[in-house]
Formats: sequence, C-alpha cells, structure tokens
Amino acid sequence: MALIVQKYGGTSVGSPERIQAVAERVKRWYDKGDDIVVVVSAMSGETNRLIGLMRAISPEPDPREMDVVLATGEQVTIGLLSMALKELGLEAKSYTGTQVAIRTDSSFNKARIESIDDQRMRADLAERKVVVVAGFQGVDDLGNITTLGRGGSDTTGVALAAALGADECQIYTDVDGVYTTDPRVVPSARRLQRITFEEMLEMASLGSKVLQIRSVEFAGKYNVPLRVLSSFGEGEGTLITVDDEEDMEKPVISGIAFNRDEAKLTVRGVPDVPGVASRILSPVGDANIEVDMIVQNVSADGTTDFTFTVARGEMKKAVAVLEKVAAELGAREVIADDHIAKVSLVGVGMRSHAGVASKMFATLAKENINIQMISTSEIKISVVVEEKYLELAVRSLHTAFDLDAEAA
Amino acid sequence: MALIVQKYGGTSVGSPERIQAVAERVKRWYDKGDDIVVVVSAMSGETNRLIGLMRAISPEPDPREMDVVLATGEQVTIGLLSMALKELGLEAKSYTGTQVAIRTDSSFNKARIESIDDQRMRADLAERKVVVVAGFQGVDDLGNITTLGRGGSDTTGVALAAALGADECQIYTDVDGVYTTDPRVVPSARRLQRITFEEMLEMASLGSKVLQIRSVEFAGKYNVPLRVLSSFGEGEGTLITVDDEEDMEKPVISGIAFNRDEAKLTVRGVPDVPGVASRILSPVGDANIEVDMIVQNVSADGTTDFTFTVARGEMKKAVAVLEKVAAELGAREVIADDHIAKVSLVGVGMRSHAGVASKMFATLAKENINIQMISTSEIKISVVVEEKYLELAVRSLHTAFDLDAEAA
Repeated sequence: MALIVQKYGGTSVGSPERIQAVAERVKRWYDKGDDIVVVVSAMSGETNRLIGLMRAISPEPDPREMDVVLATGEQVTIGLLSMALKELGLEAKSYTGTQVAIRTDSSFNKARIESIDDQRMRADLAERKVVVVAGFQGVDDLGNITTLGRGGSDTTGVALAAALGADECQIYTDVDGVYTTDPRVVPSARRLQRITFEEMLEMASLGSKVLQIRSVEFAGKYNVPLRVLSSFGEGEGTLITVDDEEDMEKPVISGIAFNRDEAKLTVRGVPDVPGVASRILSPVGDANIEVDMIVQNVSADGTTDFTFTVARGEMKKAVAVLEKVAAELGAREVIADDHIAKVSLVGVGMRSHAGVASKMFATLAKENINIQMISTSEIKISVVVEEKYLELAVRSLHTAFDLDAEAA
Repeated sequence: MALIVQKYGGTSVGSPERIQAVAERVKRWYDKGDDIVVVVSAMSGETNRLIGLMRAISPEPDPREMDVVLATGEQVTIGLLSMALKELGLEAKSYTGTQVAIRTDSSFNKARIESIDDQRMRADLAERKVVVVAGFQGVDDLGNITTLGRGGSDTTGVALAAALGADECQIYTDVDGVYTTDPRVVPSARRLQRITFEEMLEMASLGSKVLQIRSVEFAGKYNVPLRVLSSFGEGEGTLITVDDEEDMEKPVISGIAFNRDEAKLTVRGVPDVPGVASRILSPVGDANIEVDMIVQNVSADGTTDFTFTVARGEMKKAVAVLEKVAAELGAREVIADDHIAKVSLVGVGMRSHAGVASKMFATLAKENINIQMISTSEIKISVVVEEKYLELAVRSLHTAFDLDAEAA
C-alpha cells in the first residue's frame, strides 16, 4: 500500500466529463489499496476568464485581490472532483489552500510555500478518504489568500508529497512522459523510463517544457520521486528521481534538448583588459535582458571578441544597449544574428565518460554542420549552429548516441 | 459620521461596468465621511453556471462540496469590487466568510449564522478602509465552508450590521423601495418612506418579494434599521424599522398585498366531531404540501365544510390526498378551485383602529365582489375572491384606504 499524490492540470479537468474521467482514474489507484491525495488546477480557460474580468476593471489589478479572485478557479475544481468521486462510491473531501493549511509568505501572485499542515489530510487518509487539494494557492500568516503563480499546481503537488512523505508524486499532463528529444523533430525519439532531477532541469530549461522547473527543483531538494504521465492514455510515463549509481546500464546521454528562440550577439575588437566582460554585460542585465550562453576567446592583437546569446525577441533591445557600450569601450563593431539554434546533449553519464564532446563534434562535422559556439557544464554540452541545420543536427546526434527507439 | 452596511445583489454586480458603478456609489457615501462595509452577492448568472457544472457531474451533489463550489461566486465579486474601489483611490479590503470569520452551524446549503468576529473589520474601518465582505457564506467550527442558501446575502448584510452596531443596513435592489401595492396593478401605488418589520414580513410573505423574509426577521430581532433602495437610480428608498409609537400620523393601512398563486380546496359534508381538522390536514402535511389559509364553519345538520388554500401547483396532489381522506371520513365531496386570488390589507395601525374589516368588506361589496374566505391576524386581514376581480379589488381598496399617490 503506497501513498500517492496525483496532480491533474487544467486540460485534464477542463469539463465535467474530463473531471469524471479523472475520478475514474483515481478510483483505479484507490481500489489497488493506495492512499490518494489529488491536487488539481483550475478548469482550462477559467483562469483566463477571471483575468479578463479583472482587466476590465483595472489595468493593473491589486495583487492581494487578484489572488482572491484567481484562487476561486481551483476551488471550483476541488468541489466538482470530490462530487465525482462520491458518485463513484468513494469517500472524498476537498481542501482549499487555506483549509489544508498550505502556509506561504505574503508575496501575492508569486508566493512561496513555507510549511504545510498535514494533520487533517492524514486523518482523512487514515479513514480511507481521497483527499482533494486546490493547487496553486496557499494562505499567509494573516489569513490572506495567496497564489504561487502560473504553473504553481505542480509545486503544490510536490510540496504535499514531501510533507506527507509520499511514495510518488504523479504529474498528469497531455504528454505521456519525457522523451529523448522532441518527437516532432525526431520521429524515432523514445520515451525515457527514468531520468534524474538534474537531467530534467537541463532538459526543461532548454525547451522541453513538460514540467515547471520550480517543481523539479523542489522535488530534487526534498527527494520526492516524480512521475510524468498522460491523463488521457495509459502507460508508466517517466520517473524523475535521484541519480542511481548502481545502475550500470545507464546511458551516457539521456536526451537532446534544443532551442530555436535565441539570437547571438558579438562585440568585436574589444580591448582585452580585466573587467571588460562585466562592462559589456552589466548594462545588458540592467536592461532586464537575460543572457544564456557566453563565450570569449583570447586574441593575439590585444583585442578579443565577446559573444553571447539572448532570447530572440530581445535581440533589437540588446543591440541598442551594445552599440552604446561598444562606442565607450572603443570596440570595433557589434554583430547580431538571429538565424541560430542551440542544441544540447544532456546526461549524468557524461561525468564518467570521456569523449562525449569529441564524438558530438565529429558527428556534426560529418554532416558539414559548422559549430559557432560551444558551452559545457557537468552534465550538458551545448553548441550553437546555423538554424537551418537544427533538425539535421538533432537527428544525427540522436542516432550517434544510441537514442533511437530501435536501439532501446 | 455613520457606520453603514450596504448590500448589493447579483444584478447590481452583474458585469465589470456595474461593479464600477457600485464602487462609485460606495465612494459617494465614503466621501461624506461615513464608514462603509459592503456585502456582495455572486455576479448574476454565476450561481446558475456553477449549478450547471455540478449537475453535469452529480444529480444530487454532495452538500459540503456544493458549498465549496458555490462560495466561489461571491469570492470573485469581493475581489473585483475591491479592485474597482482601489481604482477610485479608496483603500479597500475583501473578506470571504472564512476570513471575517462568519461562524455558522454545519448545515451545508442552509447554514445559520452563530457569531461574527468583528475585530478585523473594525481595525480596517479605523484605518478608513472600505470593508468588502462575501455574502451568503460562512465557516463552521471545523473550517468547512458553508452557505446560507439562496438570497442569504441579505442575511449576511443584516448580521454584519447587527454585529458592528451599524446605523443602517442598506439593501440595494432593482426596485427603489417598498410600495403600498404592486405598481403594475395599481399605477397610483406609492413608495412607502417607512414600514415596520412586522408589516414588511406580512407584505413579503404575501408576494411583495423585495427582501428575503429571513433577513427581515433577523433585522427585527436585532433591531437593525433596514433600508431598501435602488442600485440604479437615486432616492431614499424605504426604511424598515421598529414600530414608532410616537408617530401620530401613522396610517391605518400601510399596504395591500396579493397573491394569485393559490388554489382553494373544500371538503364538504365532513362529520362535525373533534379531531376532524387534524385528520384532514395531517396527510396533506405528510405529502409536503404547505397550507396557507384555513377556514371551518359551523354547520347545522351535524356536518361541516372544511376549506383551505395551497400553492396552485400543488392543487392536483392535494386533491388526490383529500379524495382518500374524504372517503375514510365519509365526507360528501371534495371541491377544488384554482381561479381564486388572495388580497390582504397590512398595517400595524389596524391594532388601534376598529372598523378596518367592515370598511374593507363594504368597499368590496360596493364593487359587487363576492368574498369566498376571510382570515385575520393582528396586523392583517386577508380575503379570497374570484381571480378575475383581483385588480378591481386591489384598486378599490387602495383608494378607499387613502393609499393613492395623490393622497400622500
């Protein structure tokens, strides 16, 4: 008998029929003898409806009152799901964030969970009740309703699993797991049975947006086994867990992430003196532009080229900032390129296997794909290539590193 | 400087624009220096939308979970109204029933208020904040969300006014006050400036459904001056208050109520022996049929006729019950008539003025209207007449008792 926390997103509870389907899924787990805590989001479309009402009244709604309004979305869902469970003959009980209580700080719209009172939930579970909790919301010390921000229901699920010491936190979504890469680009991409928290973080931050990064960090921190699976089909999904050193079969590379939404900026002919990187990047940061990869090469004639990437939509703004900086520094010129893409190999196995980088570069060279930038971390190697080569790069690497479904 | 509780119903807050109009009205009172507590209902249509979702999942939704879902309606409105008030530069703060807290018993869907914690509201008012409270809802001792049932927002308003010792509880509706009778029937009907709680109760229960009966009872019990006024126009509305013995100008009759929705049932030739009334009415009550007027006349030949009225929609069901009872009692026959109407004179002045009944009967006789039944109470005289004479009866009585606008 296990204790399972299940989280269902807005699409999974988007209509009375879908809520009934969720109830039936919960019942199947319950009937196996497991204790179940369910976390739900607002029905799809509801949050946008509420935001529309608020915007009609105020261009910048008061943050405290926004949370009062937004929190109703999940409150409706917990009531409806509890009813659906009772229709199936199960005992069920709903809780708002206030009722649990899920204590947060007072940062309205983006509150952080501080503690969770598990007493009521444990009492219900002891009586074999299904506990249904509103995701995304909490309550501060003064009794104010708070929300965790968009996507916060995943975090609620993980936090409840941690507080209850659950055996697993299951995140039901519209995909059936985490894949070696995007199946729309590589048809032979294969669902991973298992991935580590670190790998998932690298995959997620690189564009495989299956889970909210914050909830994965949270799960890693409290060591909560996290499983991503489909709320529409069957299947075991992907288990996200700690690095299991015992697993000798562990592949070198777990997956390939990529991102088209980047642009590359180069300041050429910068005097190669201490502090120059900071003088270039500080004004970029001050302009609220987030920088991703950064590369600087040594240069022979006393100057160097400084290159970094930003989100594609920020390129123009970044160029304006850089033109000014370049003039101040006496740099030669600023070059911008938004026809690039980033491709990254991710895998904890990389740590103990040499030669991943050279194999990656050789594979790309064989396809005549020029590498414009390289950046490495402990479990990731990223390269920037011309955008038109993105699919070719991902497919050839997917095959070279034995990720294709046939090789599984 | 007064403390005013204002309650706005679903139509008054039915759209973002209407919520903004309410905020402007609140601001006008606030700017006069008054302290304001606002109670709001769910936006019109919202409660029905939520009921639709629930019915799609369960034909008889769990009562606890129903209240969880229904309470979101008012929660959305308090957030939106607080935002609208802030847009006008006022400090405002919203409270759910739980947050106030409004303590109730645990009778989901029809909870009764047991106590109200006024601490937070008083602290806000002391800081010149407008306090915005969700109507219709409360919280029980275990932290469960409860609702007071439909129309319960009026009760919330009165209860808050009582707890805070407010100077007045204003109920904003889509009518501009309580009238001497229905203006659609008598164009010369006139708005009453003042009416007593008792009179209002008799008027309300007889069909002038301006206020929820329960909130009037509540206001009378705690002596909270209640004012009915329009949320769309201006004007002073009608003040409902205790009987002011000092007012020498008090009219004998305050208003005329009427009800078309009744049917008359007569059991003829019932043996005139003790216990027969109970033997007739018990099975009617057992069938959940509510009885209104009851008349029994003595009879000469050892039998009597027993007559009572029920809601028109219940007539068929009542006849079926009575046919059976009549057979058991050896009664002659059962006669049913749904072409009737009830007309009632209401007024606390009746207590000290003889001759109201005779003047009423004479007025109707002059118009050749036959009286089928008569029933009296301390501040009310009701008669049943043929339905087609209803308008004529009401108009002639309205004139006879000096209620016409010209006479005001």
